[in-house]
Amino acid sequence: MKYKLIVEYFGKNYNGWQRQKNGVGVQQVLEEKLSDLLGSTIKIVGSGRTDTGVHALGQVAHFEANTTIPPEKMVFALNTLLPDDIKVQRCEAADADFHAQYSAKRKTYRYQAYLSRIPSPLRDDRYARIVPPLDIEAMKRCAQKMVGVHDFAAFSSLGSEKKSTIREIYRCELIQNGDELYFEIEGNGFLYNMVRIIVGTLVFVGKSKLPESIADEMFRTGNRKAGGKTFPAKGLFLKSVSYTK
Amino acid sequence: MKYKLIVEYFGKNYNGWQRQKNGVGVQQVLEEKLSDLLGSTIKIVGSGRTDTGVHALGQVAHFEANTTIPPEKMVFALNTLLPDDIKVQRCEAADADFHAQYSAKRKTYRYQAYLSRIPSPLRDDRYARIVPPLDIEAMKRCAQKMVGVHDFAAFSSLGSEKKSTIREIYRCELIQNGDELYFEIEGNGFLYNMVRIIVGTLVFVGKSKLPESIADEMFRTGNRKAGGKTFPAKGLFLKSVSYTK
Repeated sequence: MKYKLIVEYFGKNYNGWQRQKNGVGVQQVLEEKLSDLLGSTIKIVGSGRTDTGVHALGQVAHFEANTTIPPEKMVFALNTLLPDDIKVQRCEAADADFHAQYSAKRKTYRYQAYLSRIPSPLRDDRYARIVPPLDIEAMKRCAQKMVGVHDFAAFSSLGSEKKSTIREIYRCELIQNGDELYFEIEGNGFLYNMVRIIVGTLVFVGKSKLPESIADEMFRTGNRKAGGKTFPAKGLFLKSVSYTK
Repeated sequence: MKYKLIVEYFGKNYNGWQRQKNGVGVQQVLEEKLSDLLGSTIKIVGSGRTDTGVHALGQVAHFEANTTIPPEKMVFALNTLLPDDIKVQRCEAADADFHAQYSAKRKTYRYQAYLSRIPSPLRDDRYARIVPPLDIEAMKRCAQKMVGVHDFAAFSSLGSEKKSTIREIYRCELIQNGDELYFEIEGNGFLYNMVRIIVGTLVFVGKSKLPESIADEMFRTGNRKAGGKTFPAKGLFLKSVSYTK
């Protein structure tokens, strides 16, 4: 039987989704606990990697297992074995041709920041801090340039393994709430560090360290160095993965 | 010169505000860093204790020091020395007769919970989880009974050192936001574990384990055992301390 899992995790203690040379990946923990539960070696496939320290509200994965445990029972059985910072939120029976990575049509990321000269201990592990002032209107205008089909090579860290660097962004929105600022970015796929570089570049625009036109230049030249810094992983959340257009 | 500090802290790694036999208190860390900064032993006085694991958005403290460092410089100098989970948010010059504990007129606590059968890793360290269903209207009615001047002896853990157990509650509100439930409680003072016992008792009312009239019975009898369980510290935040009526 093929199962689809929706997984929430707090990424602080993990080297991202995938197993790394050093450190533990979330996928690895899930595979170990599933294998313990089912008494055979289980391999799971995620919708894609998340970087070291990145969190997920709705990472999606699939696995096949020679069992008929009902999906809703799988949630409770697996959560009993999983640590506090990784929990399955939902489990469904998946079609035979479902593939967590290849069937994915749309991903939504959220990046959380707050504006303050003073660090906030209660937000320290899940927000980036930005020192004001910030021209948020300029950032919103630049964010609009991200929407559409572009070559995002300049928005990717060197060493990215993806062959094509062309992606479509459906939505790139800034939401203000008191002293907090959320970036919501939705697209058909993302390159390594892409969201964190988009956020860093928008923040540099907001601080007038870069012009709004920087996005056009980066699309044209593919030059990563033209952009803003890669913002910290701790503010980034994989919100959801969608399998319908 | 006398200084007033407003301090935010994430309580997970501390044995509350005050120094304990085992473990470190937030007050102690502040005293050590202040003493390092000013080159003499500094004693600070907080508005009151917070229990082990409880957080604060706006704990207030005062101290006297033989220095003329401007308050706004104190914030930055002290934060450089403080760990990530304790940061001074504001520092002001205080009147000679200001006392963080005795001058306090009003405290506001917030308790955070979410309703779900499944644990949420991203909320695990700062929310209590309540398994639905929950009769929130019954809880709101019982919460209204807390408002006013009452003997809260039954809402205090044994061994509380306070002599009088009479307190006035100005506001006891439940706020729903999606699957989250916040309890906001404002009063002229709180006994040991009082907020966490109020929350636990209201939740037992919401689960029909206790009748709404339990509040009246507890005020009348002073019997702690009649109430609900003491809810976990990790969901509790000292939001603010006010020095005006």
